[in-house]
Amino acid sequence: MNVKEALNGLKKFEEQSFALGHAMGLLSYDSSTVAPKQSVKALTVTQGELSRMSYELTTAPETAEMIETLHANAKELDFVTARKAEELYRDLDRIRRIPKDLYVEYQKLCVESDAVWHDAKVNNDYPSFKPLLQRIFDMTKQIALCIEPGKDPYDTQLDNFERGLTAATCEKFFDTLKKGIVPLLGKVTSSPEQVREPLLEGVFPVAVQRDFSAYVMNVMGLDPERSVIGETEHPFTTDFSKYDVRITTHYHEDDLLSSMYSVIHEGGHALYELNIGDELTMSCLGGGVSMGIHESQSRFYENIIGRSREFCGLILPWLREHFPDRLSALTQERLYRAVNASAPSLIRTEADELTYCLHIMVRFELERMMFAGNITAEDLPAEWNRLYKEYLGIDVPDDRRGVLQDSHWSFGGIGYFPSYAIGSAYGAQYLDEMNKSFNVADAVSAGNFSLIADWFRERIWKFGRLYDPTELFNRVCGQFRPEVYIKYLENKFNVIYGLTT
Amino acid sequence: MNVKEALNGLKKFEEQSFALGHAMGLLSYDSSTVAPKQSVKALTVTQGELSRMSYELTTAPETAEMIETLHANAKELDFVTARKAEELYRDLDRIRRIPKDLYVEYQKLCVESDAVWHDAKVNNDYPSFKPLLQRIFDMTKQIALCIEPGKDPYDTQLDNFERGLTAATCEKFFDTLKKGIVPLLGKVTSSPEQVREPLLEGVFPVAVQRDFSAYVMNVMGLDPERSVIGETEHPFTTDFSKYDVRITTHYHEDDLLSSMYSVIHEGGHALYELNIGDELTMSCLGGGVSMGIHESQSRFYENIIGRSREFCGLILPWLREHFPDRLSALTQERLYRAVNASAPSLIRTEADELTYCLHIMVRFELERMMFAGNITAEDLPAEWNRLYKEYLGIDVPDDRRGVLQDSHWSFGGIGYFPSYAIGSAYGAQYLDEMNKSFNVADAVSAGNFSLIADWFRERIWKFGRLYDPTELFNRVCGQFRPEVYIKYLENKFNVIYGLTT
Repeated sequence: MNVKEALNGLKKFEEQSFALGHAMGLLSYDSSTVAPKQSVKALTVTQGELSRMSYELTTAPETAEMIETLHANAKELDFVTARKAEELYRDLDRIRRIPKDLYVEYQKLCVESDAVWHDAKVNNDYPSFKPLLQRIFDMTKQIALCIEPGKDPYDTQLDNFERGLTAATCEKFFDTLKKGIVPLLGKVTSSPEQVREPLLEGVFPVAVQRDFSAYVMNVMGLDPERSVIGETEHPFTTDFSKYDVRITTHYHEDDLLSSMYSVIHEGGHALYELNIGDELTMSCLGGGVSMGIHESQSRFYENIIGRSREFCGLILPWLREHFPDRLSALTQERLYRAVNASAPSLIRTEADELTYCLHIMVRFELERMMFAGNITAEDLPAEWNRLYKEYLGIDVPDDRRGVLQDSHWSFGGIGYFPSYAIGSAYGAQYLDEMNKSFNVADAVSAGNFSLIADWFRERIWKFGRLYDPTELFNRVCGQFRPEVYIKYLENKFNVIYGLTT
Repeated sequence: MNVKEALNGLKKFEEQSFALGHAMGLLSYDSSTVAPKQSVKALTVTQGELSRMSYELTTAPETAEMIETLHANAKELDFVTARKAEELYRDLDRIRRIPKDLYVEYQKLCVESDAVWHDAKVNNDYPSFKPLLQRIFDMTKQIALCIEPGKDPYDTQLDNFERGLTAATCEKFFDTLKKGIVPLLGKVTSSPEQVREPLLEGVFPVAVQRDFSAYVMNVMGLDPERSVIGETEHPFTTDFSKYDVRITTHYHEDDLLSSMYSVIHEGGHALYELNIGDELTMSCLGGGVSMGIHESQSRFYENIIGRSREFCGLILPWLREHFPDRLSALTQERLYRAVNASAPSLIRTEADELTYCLHIMVRFELERMMFAGNITAEDLPAEWNRLYKEYLGIDVPDDRRGVLQDSHWSFGGIGYFPSYAIGSAYGAQYLDEMNKSFNVADAVSAGNFSLIADWFRERIWKFGRLYDPTELFNRVCGQFRPEVYIKYLENKFNVIYGLTT
């Protein structure tokens, strides 16, 4: 096969691969949003067969020859195509090490497990999920060992979500965070200035919350011709191309902030995917480069923008107009303090900025213990509760608000969670850099979100998977300095809680 | 390949074929219900690739050998497997005659065309749809001629939707209908007892209509664990297996009956799919056998049940309770007369039983003229309007309520429409037969829909594609006698309109 033939083969391969990924992604999205309960019977078959087709397509001799030809002749290729060859070669090398039957069985297990988790969470029934969760952990580890036999399988998992990340790096990072956050949190929780906003307690009709989501998506600049919102047990974002990005949320009648911040968070993910370069979308370099970079976008919008004083001022008129009975007395300052109320809590997705990373550390520890074989799925609820007591000082009343709260493990996302903490910390450095280009607070006050989007698009979004995530971040921010994040938190919470520094 | 090997191959083929069909079906359903507008850019690629995979799977040498082996050894097979071999052999024989590129191009055209039709209807913009519609007609005819070179391509299309149906049979059937319906309609429209129900005019909030749909689906016995409702421009039903059936409707705030009868109609389709035999669902004999039989179920529920006096009595309390301001004065008799008000109208899906088949005849004539090359897409709106004047005596005010109203042509469903008329006529014979088993009116009064469902399940639904549609109908009703339908209409409308017989 010569390079020209390989380039033709690449185009064909990318279309086929895109089609299968699109179909599998939609089947998964649909099952979380729209599909009736028993559809899982057919879904397992379909996802199994499509993943088999995907495996066979990727590992077919002609595909392998195409990829190897391009990889061996990378110097003749333009930069984008050479990067495609590099990534495809890596993917091929890894997937070939997994036996086909194991690969397919794992995909089917994840489909089944996700459905069982959903019901288990709704019914607060951990025992029904336990055997599948154990199999998920076992099989994920087994596959990680296939891919990298000589490496700690948990490091392989971390690398799947954030290229190059290791447990040792995480530990060091979490130590830095702990040293900064724990004393600050101690001062906050013992401060006499406790924040509680009675105006935000009570009932906020879901129908109006839905309108609020549409308003927020519009403020953020999500193109309605290319993005939609659905409703799920656990909020998430999925994309099939830059022309079709789906976010989801979960409405709680008694908690306006929960869906509001999940919409802003998922909206951040969506903006990234909506702004991938035209020439990369639907190719093997389409989509966000890693979960760390992805979460750095979503957490930036959720917290650095969404929990800023200026954003509170921006959305206040809408809230007062649409909840006149409840919120007419709300002020910008009261809203700002309310959305930044810091206190140890049960639910990660609803945690304030200060306690958020402690939720991540609990999951990191549990995943490592599971992978090390120190605990089993039988032990997970008790260990979860023990670590929540240790890290956050609170008692977990039930598994629904404990070990069952997140969907990640049910779909095999072991090693995903640290990305949230890294992404959160990245955000503080973006803010410093962005402020060198324009005044971010002024842009938010003015509702000028296109300034922020333009900045990210040119530096991160449009590149898709073109650069390694660490390289991409370093190009924008120099290098990773967690202390910038600690400083950001200190500055913010010292003021809110009237602490002397 | 021996029979045992072929049987293993069959199982594998059925799973792969099911998976691709499931994925393509969901992509299509999603694009009509949830997907953002620009998703069509990726959808066209994905549906094209998946249809190419489906074509390649079906025509692969090993698939062909498997099917031919089973077909040649049908006597050794159990009845179900022999029927699978027979149907697969026919499918293979037909699909092989279509060049692959043409097959794929046609699938992509249908995806694109459906999206363009949708916008054209919303914007009343026929010119934007015209060139695609012409291509749909041209390419559908071209493919029909590939499949059966020696046959009138319109007969091939009719056969695709109702095995064995020809234009000549349709003509004869429509003549019989016209002879019965036109004089009756003449008497009805000149009757002094004109039906108009002012209580049903005005605004019925969509939120309450949604609740009503849920109520109606429950009354009909649609299992909520296996069926859901969505909202689309044009109502339809799609199924991926008996475990996942989707119906859709379109809500009009000023027309309660429109969504009510589309839900009952689509509910009839759904009941059929929900009750396919366990051993047939997800196999190549799963799903309803033909559109004629399918429409005979949906039209039976919509009209013979849904427009009966007893059904009106059954649902009246719900309507009065949920629309107390508007409908507290509504009586069973007034509702019965209102839902059977007969008058020539613009929209097929909202037509009364008496005028309905005239809408079908218009489409039948237009399709035949298009296939004969007597008119082009350029002429369609004017020809549509001319035939509405001729058949129904009314003027069509715009294309949105004229030639653009139905989705069928946009997805290549040329030759589908006669199934609605045949299905409608079948219903009257089912009613006679069903009344030999139990009193249908009493069952409806009592809300005992499981009696009706049991009757259909044992005679039609559970068999899937196991029998030829004509054979299936004849097993239940002897043979097709359109005069039974005419008699049913005469009896019903003579009473409603106080006509002397």
